[in-house]
Amino acid sequence: MAVTDLDGRILGHRDEPADIATGPEQCLLRVDELFAELTSATRDLPGRLWGIGIGVPGPVEFRSGHPVSPPIMPGWDGYPIRERFVARHEAPVWVDNDVNLLALGEWRSGIAVGHDNVVVVKIGTGIGAGIISNGRIHRGAQGAAGDVGHIQVAEGSVACRCGNVGCLEALAGGSALARDGELAAVEGRSERLRMALDQHGRVTAEDVARAASSGDPVAVALLTDAGHRVGRTLASVVNFFNPSLIVIGGGVAQSGDQLLASIRETVYRRSLPLATRDLLVQRSSLGALAGVIGASSMVTEQLFSREAMARWLRVGGPR
Amino acid sequence: MAVTDLDGRILGHRDEPADIATGPEQCLLRVDELFAELTSATRDLPGRLWGIGIGVPGPVEFRSGHPVSPPIMPGWDGYPIRERFVARHEAPVWVDNDVNLLALGEWRSGIAVGHDNVVVVKIGTGIGAGIISNGRIHRGAQGAAGDVGHIQVAEGSVACRCGNVGCLEALAGGSALARDGELAAVEGRSERLRMALDQHGRVTAEDVARAASSGDPVAVALLTDAGHRVGRTLASVVNFFNPSLIVIGGGVAQSGDQLLASIRETVYRRSLPLATRDLLVQRSSLGALAGVIGASSMVTEQLFSREAMARWLRVGGPR
Repeated sequence: MAVTDLDGRILGHRDEPADIATGPEQCLLRVDELFAELTSATRDLPGRLWGIGIGVPGPVEFRSGHPVSPPIMPGWDGYPIRERFVARHEAPVWVDNDVNLLALGEWRSGIAVGHDNVVVVKIGTGIGAGIISNGRIHRGAQGAAGDVGHIQVAEGSVACRCGNVGCLEALAGGSALARDGELAAVEGRSERLRMALDQHGRVTAEDVARAASSGDPVAVALLTDAGHRVGRTLASVVNFFNPSLIVIGGGVAQSGDQLLASIRETVYRRSLPLATRDLLVQRSSLGALAGVIGASSMVTEQLFSREAMARWLRVGGPR
Repeated sequence: MAVTDLDGRILGHRDEPADIATGPEQCLLRVDELFAELTSATRDLPGRLWGIGIGVPGPVEFRSGHPVSPPIMPGWDGYPIRERFVARHEAPVWVDNDVNLLALGEWRSGIAVGHDNVVVVKIGTGIGAGIISNGRIHRGAQGAAGDVGHIQVAEGSVACRCGNVGCLEALAGGSALARDGELAAVEGRSERLRMALDQHGRVTAEDVARAASSGDPVAVALLTDAGHRVGRTLASVVNFFNPSLIVIGGGVAQSGDQLLASIRETVYRRSLPLATRDLLVQRSSLGALAGVIGASSMVTEQLFSREAMARWLRVGGPR
């Protein structure tokens, strides 16, 4: 959560894990608390609250601001997020998929500035993508665009949390890396991962990335394999979409070079020469702040859109 | 080739095969001849020539109207198609990829009217797609978007004309169907395909489609298999792009129901429920005319764009 000015400059910032699966009431109560804390702690708040931007990890009908059958957000389907915040704060509210906000952040203020066709891939627990087409967010017909994590990449029996088998994120997402890393630790195949397991009682994707950075061969193999799988899927995306830039972000991608190197190598090897001739594959430049910067950009973009300006002219000023 | 009025109504039409690989000079000489024939044969041409729209089977830099490293158009890389026609006809000229024009045609006047996010797939000799994102053609960074035919769908050794192996179109395009159908005829596995081979000295994809329509089991299996492969690729496209409509066009798709049925079944089975809930998979409604209708739409769209209007105001009228 961040408070920014209308230029997107961050005036205050809070960051903590949340379990989206506890449902909207419990999650958003904590958001309210943090919001109150943050605004009272942020000195020099320059005047009024112009708007609120919110990202959630699922498809959103952008017009209404309601989540639409979000697979990993039980209890949130159709929940009136916008109305809830409008009622409490008397400011306009926009809600979007969190990866769309990452993409918007990188595109307005990060590595993607100046590119009109961009795919921003978040590799965290799951895998998702935000898409810029012709200089605009492409949300798709149901707000579900960018769901690359559930593209089927393998036959066989690895079950995904979405209910299908063989999905990209079930094989190459953060949860998959943690699962395979923990297995390697338990089976005694990796000393470093064993140490992580002994210390914390579990192995995380970040443990795997750290072990790979210090040369652990099992961890390197896990990340390389995940990168190849992500890269093969992105090679198809490149042929279909022809972006000039792919941005790789998310916790797993931030924590080491192995994964990015492996993704990059596979994308260049598997896509058509024309589509890769000027293609860049870069790490996110805003990192963990991309989301809040994107949310702030969404608010200013909506506040000062042509349509909003026309409305202001009719009603005599911003409401 | 067609002459239309500004409403897109077709006043005259010619259709003949052309071998794009003979290079621009030879190809376009024949285009000049047809153009002269068509305009002299079309009675009641209402006044001036407002513009010319041209589609070519390869990536085009839309701004300049030049083909960009088109894989199956030897001799056309960077060829100044626009300048050539402007010099001859003193009218504005726009050039685009032929599948983009199919998409534009279906979107302006065909089955895709009213849909903002559409993928139009042409299954002819090769396989390509035209993409509408947020109500605009998505051409990608190099004009190479929609190149789904060269997504790698299989390991192994089936060589593609693009130089890679395992591409979708090498396994499921019209050439692949013709090749596999001819093999079945030679090996005596299909009586109907054998008859086609005896009659014409070769088997075409259309022969395979016709044989399947009359129940030939080998032909049915070939089309079903091709449809599954196309469908699996499109399922990935659906997860990434979330269109509300997929249009299937091109010679092979027009010639029977087997292929469409098999594509449809696979897309619905393999994509995420949310992305397929309101997804339609339909046959092209304009068929072979989609391209010329799209080219005509492109001309009027460009002639009467906001930018063009602003230019007219500056220079005192259309030039």
